[in-house]
Amino acid sequence: MEVLLKDIAVLVGDQGLITGDAVSERPADWLGQSHCRAAAVVRPRTTQELSAVMKACHTARQPVVAAGGLTGLVHGADAGPGELLVSFERMNQIEKIDPVQRTLTVQAGVRTEQAQEAAREAGLLFAIDLGARGSSTVGGNISTNAGGNQVLRYGMTRQNVLGLEAVLADGTIISSMSPLMKNNTGYDLKHLFIGSEGTLGLVTRAVFRLHPLPLGEVTAMAGVRDLPSVARFLRHMEDRLCGSLTAFEVMWHSFYNLIAVQGERHKAPLSSEFPYYVLLEAHGGHADNDQDQFSDAIGAALTEGLIEDAVIASSKRQRDALWAIREDIPGLVQALYPMCSFDVSLPIGEMEPYLAGVQSKLSKVFGETCKLLVFGHLGDGNLHLLVSPRPWGDDAQHKAEEIIYQPLGQVGGSVSAEHGIGLEKKRWLTQSRSSEEIRLMQHIKFALDPCGLLNPGKIIDDLGPAGGATHADAA
Amino acid sequence: MEVLLKDIAVLVGDQGLITGDAVSERPADWLGQSHCRAAAVVRPRTTQELSAVMKACHTARQPVVAAGGLTGLVHGADAGPGELLVSFERMNQIEKIDPVQRTLTVQAGVRTEQAQEAAREAGLLFAIDLGARGSSTVGGNISTNAGGNQVLRYGMTRQNVLGLEAVLADGTIISSMSPLMKNNTGYDLKHLFIGSEGTLGLVTRAVFRLHPLPLGEVTAMAGVRDLPSVARFLRHMEDRLCGSLTAFEVMWHSFYNLIAVQGERHKAPLSSEFPYYVLLEAHGGHADNDQDQFSDAIGAALTEGLIEDAVIASSKRQRDALWAIREDIPGLVQALYPMCSFDVSLPIGEMEPYLAGVQSKLSKVFGETCKLLVFGHLGDGNLHLLVSPRPWGDDAQHKAEEIIYQPLGQVGGSVSAEHGIGLEKKRWLTQSRSSEEIRLMQHIKFALDPCGLLNPGKIIDDLGPAGGATHADAA
Repeated sequence: MEVLLKDIAVLVGDQGLITGDAVSERPADWLGQSHCRAAAVVRPRTTQELSAVMKACHTARQPVVAAGGLTGLVHGADAGPGELLVSFERMNQIEKIDPVQRTLTVQAGVRTEQAQEAAREAGLLFAIDLGARGSSTVGGNISTNAGGNQVLRYGMTRQNVLGLEAVLADGTIISSMSPLMKNNTGYDLKHLFIGSEGTLGLVTRAVFRLHPLPLGEVTAMAGVRDLPSVARFLRHMEDRLCGSLTAFEVMWHSFYNLIAVQGERHKAPLSSEFPYYVLLEAHGGHADNDQDQFSDAIGAALTEGLIEDAVIASSKRQRDALWAIREDIPGLVQALYPMCSFDVSLPIGEMEPYLAGVQSKLSKVFGETCKLLVFGHLGDGNLHLLVSPRPWGDDAQHKAEEIIYQPLGQVGGSVSAEHGIGLEKKRWLTQSRSSEEIRLMQHIKFALDPCGLLNPGKIIDDLGPAGGATHADAA
Repeated sequence: MEVLLKDIAVLVGDQGLITGDAVSERPADWLGQSHCRAAAVVRPRTTQELSAVMKACHTARQPVVAAGGLTGLVHGADAGPGELLVSFERMNQIEKIDPVQRTLTVQAGVRTEQAQEAAREAGLLFAIDLGARGSSTVGGNISTNAGGNQVLRYGMTRQNVLGLEAVLADGTIISSMSPLMKNNTGYDLKHLFIGSEGTLGLVTRAVFRLHPLPLGEVTAMAGVRDLPSVARFLRHMEDRLCGSLTAFEVMWHSFYNLIAVQGERHKAPLSSEFPYYVLLEAHGGHADNDQDQFSDAIGAALTEGLIEDAVIASSKRQRDALWAIREDIPGLVQALYPMCSFDVSLPIGEMEPYLAGVQSKLSKVFGETCKLLVFGHLGDGNLHLLVSPRPWGDDAQHKAEEIIYQPLGQVGGSVSAEHGIGLEKKRWLTQSRSSEEIRLMQHIKFALDPCGLLNPGKIIDDLGPAGGATHADAA
């Protein structure tokens, strides 16, 4: 390792390599609850530098783990003492905004918020938005296929990436920096790197599609009496707004009551009597028309009995206050800690029986004091569940996982809607993916990283040399 | 081969296998200009049947070629005498429409138009639409990542597929039939099969995302004086309609003049004096507002000098008449035959110098009688070029290809925007993809189809056993 680190120091310069105590002083997660355990931290400035580093690592069979803003929630960027951490903190350049083509070209270490601001200054919208916008990086968004608050309209990160550049395990640079919306020239390699959590290649640069900046933005919160009505309200608003609905976030009563009613951080915009609270937002191109059309649609929903009450934000301040309730994760953590958090998706029609089953099993296993808080991007079928088993103990997390994940397979659900698999969900992957799918993932991993150097052990186990050889023998 | 065919006959039944003269009576392309040259045609009814067929083929090392509606334009489904053709014509079932989840589950042989109609009957929109809608199949759309007329708003086929099922070369069924918008559970395998032209697996079923059926549709045609104004008009309409712009099709003067002015099949909606004609359409949720907002935006474009004249369709009949001009491919073929057709994409800002260069080179090589007609989905950066070299000869196609494709590499363009590579564009792939990208494609191909049985020779050459072994040795 020492010889390799000397070689790397030459490649990236003094500022590019961190070793010794300075490594363990760095946080390993967004809450700063753990510290970096990697052997060293490499901080390249360019794709070419990283390529040279990976060539050296490949020769030395040295495993590496890539890290962005450390806002991941599934231990996808954990690095052990035998691994090098590659940080993109010095690759933070916005390279180009093209207002005619409507593209943004950036290095992987650019923060989400930085990309949003750069686009806004050019009169355009960078449509990936998530709670961790201040710390998360675009490279991390790509590697995890980040979702967030506007997926309903603009898609996941995957749908916003036009082109990207990645370094393979052996240092090969795959540059697919196309700025084109249509490019059917063979395999669309970028999709291998998007969402594969740094196990197939290290994403260094990307071209993002930008969208028109909305000229009108309308936000409302509604109280709803049952989940089928929530689903009908979603489809009603989608139909009436035909494409301009940007967010459809739902908070279960227990969430709203804890944060907006009992808590002192917010003023409750609606009374506390409703079982469900929907925060919805639309982006349009005509402030007056948008407001009218949105109000008309809300009015019709009230008349048709889809919702019980609603408030429409009449200022930016009111809009932000509604979102602050939905995004008050610190308030949740404070109230529920210690707790386990989950990120699942399932068909909307399956949510009610699924949650009833989860609630019943939680009570049975942990007793009535165990709280279950549910909220999420319901328009995308994505729910976040918070569970606070008491007494908290070593096996609480595992027992809760079993209750949350096990029923998902039968209803076509997913154990990870937007957070990824990392290490935390690896053992539950089989709930959402078949053995044939996992075997194929292993073959893909082997094809791109035969020595298993990139983020080893994350998502899946390696096929291993034996498996690879057997496979090659078929030829 | 005879033994294998006997085995296959048992697997798929009498109706499932076509041999002998009945094979060569079948057309091999949409114009019926060529006939099927395959050894036999296999017509499975289910994924399981196809899996059994592929297991037999794998054991016998028998290559197969998959075919949908035969509307491809790059010889991507050509099958030779040593190959079996797999046709999906008996896998034409619409399995399920879920109006709550807004998904459509279909077998691969369902025609595009059939999927559109099924969705419309359920009050929803199947958003993939292309000229070949009457013959093309959803499986073919997936295998080629078909584009078409509404990509600007709804994306390519790739963006509309939530889940799919495919059979690998060895008969393994990869079933990823998730109906979820968010599903970050390991590698998103469906993207391997979308757009890979049947070289990595045979797509048998899919789950498509459906969209709200527009409540208002507004269509117009505008005359524009230069290409920079066309680009500014596009961005103006995108901004003013903020997401509801569905199509932005451009016809160069020579196209419009030939089809709408000189031809007798249409009535010209605008005078023939403009260099560019834009056909644009928006989908909205409020018929009156949509019409007003669209008219206002067109009015502003006239005032600001972005366009010279415009006509807005005031009836379905008028709307269809405008589209009939844009879609009159038979009229073009009749006027230009024999000709070569091209499908490229490039940044909008590069189009003018690119086309000037192409025109100049065509005149130099073929003389002034050589016609160049340009049209396409300009909103997606996608141009179709028709070239009619005279005198027509064996090398005309090749010379024209050189003129069209060669300059694309330097401007970040693509030799195939939406048609794919197949055999026709294989030698030009290097204009759009680097040797590193192509090598990685070969490794992917080898990982999924080590014996090279699926659509051999299309897109890329196989790595071959030697290359694969070398690669495996690295482990």
